[in-house]
Amino acid sequence: MRLWQNPASPFARKVRIVFRESGLLPRTEEINVAVSPVSPNADLARHNPLVKIPALQTDDGTVLYDSSVICEYLDSLNPGAHMLPAGAARWDALRLQSLCDGILDAAVLCRYELAVRPEPYRWNDWVQGQFTKIRSGLDALATEVPSWGSSFGIGQIGAACVLGYLDFRFGDEKWRERAALATWYDSVRQRASVVATTPA
Amino acid sequence: MRLWQNPASPFARKVRIVFRESGLLPRTEEINVAVSPVSPNADLARHNPLVKIPALQTDDGTVLYDSSVICEYLDSLNPGAHMLPAGAARWDALRLQSLCDGILDAAVLCRYELAVRPEPYRWNDWVQGQFTKIRSGLDALATEVPSWGSSFGIGQIGAACVLGYLDFRFGDEKWRERAALATWYDSVRQRASVVATTPA
Repeated sequence: MRLWQNPASPFARKVRIVFRESGLLPRTEEINVAVSPVSPNADLARHNPLVKIPALQTDDGTVLYDSSVICEYLDSLNPGAHMLPAGAARWDALRLQSLCDGILDAAVLCRYELAVRPEPYRWNDWVQGQFTKIRSGLDALATEVPSWGSSFGIGQIGAACVLGYLDFRFGDEKWRERAALATWYDSVRQRASVVATTPA
Repeated sequence: MRLWQNPASPFARKVRIVFRESGLLPRTEEINVAVSPVSPNADLARHNPLVKIPALQTDDGTVLYDSSVICEYLDSLNPGAHMLPAGAARWDALRLQSLCDGILDAAVLCRYELAVRPEPYRWNDWVQGQFTKIRSGLDALATEVPSWGSSFGIGQIGAACVLGYLDFRFGDEKWRERAALATWYDSVRQRASVVATTPA
C-alpha cells in the first residue's frame, strides 16, 4: 500500500496511528507531500481529485480517502482486535470519531486563516466561531473521557490527534484546564504509535 | 427520531434523501435550524457540540453526527435494499461518498467566503483553490458516472446533493458541460426523494 501523508496533518496522523496500532505498517510506504488549498500538489491530484491527504492506494490499486474511510478499511484488514466495534457500540465510536474530526476541521480552518491567508484578509469573527466549536468539542471530550477506560479505538485515536494538533499549532490554547482530558492524554501520549507520529 | 436540518444544507439533504429512500421518514421529525460558523444556534449546541447540521437524535436519545454516520445508521435500520453495500463494494461506495462530501466541503467554504464573510476580508486565491477541488471532483464524477447504472446508493445520493447544491448556490458554474453527468442528473432529479428535498 502507499499512503500520501504529511507529518503536520492531524487527519493523516489518525491513519498513521491505525497503521501502527494494527501491525500493518510493514505493508505500506508513507509518501510525504506538502499540500494546501492554495498550493495543490500535482502528483497527489492524479490520485485524489480533492488533492487532500491522507489518501491510501491499496494493494489492488484503488485509492481511498478520507481518513475515516481509510481507517475503517485498515481495520477490516486487521486480524487482531478491531478499532471500530460492531453492533451498538459502533455508532458511539463513529460519533466520537466525527466529533474529533469536526474539532480538527475547525482547528485546521483556523490554521489556514492565521498562517496561510494574508493578514489583511483575516476575519476575526471566523476564527472566534471556529474556536467556539473547538472549545465546546473539548468540553464534550472532557465529559466523555471517564467512560473510555483503557480503550484506544478510532474515537480515542481521533482525540489524541486533536490534543496533539492543539499542542503543535495552538500552544497557547489552555485545553489542559480540562483535567480529566489532560490526565488521559498523559497516558496515551506514551504509546509507541503516538510517540512515532508526534509532529515535530 | 429527531433530525436537526436546514433545507439549504447539502449535508442535511443527504440524510433527508436516505430517510425518504429507505421508508423511514414517518419515524422522524425534521427540525429546521439556521446555523453558520459565525452565528451558532443555542438549541443545537446542546445536542451537537460542533453546532453543525445534520444531527440525529435516535429513539434511545443518542445524538449522532456527521451526515455519513447518520446515513450509515439509517441504512442499518432499513429492512430493504442497503444503500451502503457490504464486502468489497463497500470501499468504493464510501470513497465515492467522501469524494462528494469533499466537493461539498469546498463549495460550502466558497459560499461562506462569498456570502457570509464581509467583502474586504475575501481572498480570491482561497475561492479559486476551492473551485479547483470542486471542478476536479466533478471531472472525477463524470468519469465514474457510466459505471453507476441505475444504482442510487450513498455515493449517488452524495452526487445528487453536489449537483443540486451547485445549481442552488452557484448557478453560473457550467458543470453540465460534463454531458454524462448532466444526463445522469436529469434522470435522478425525478426521484421523489430528490424532488422533495430540492432547495428552494
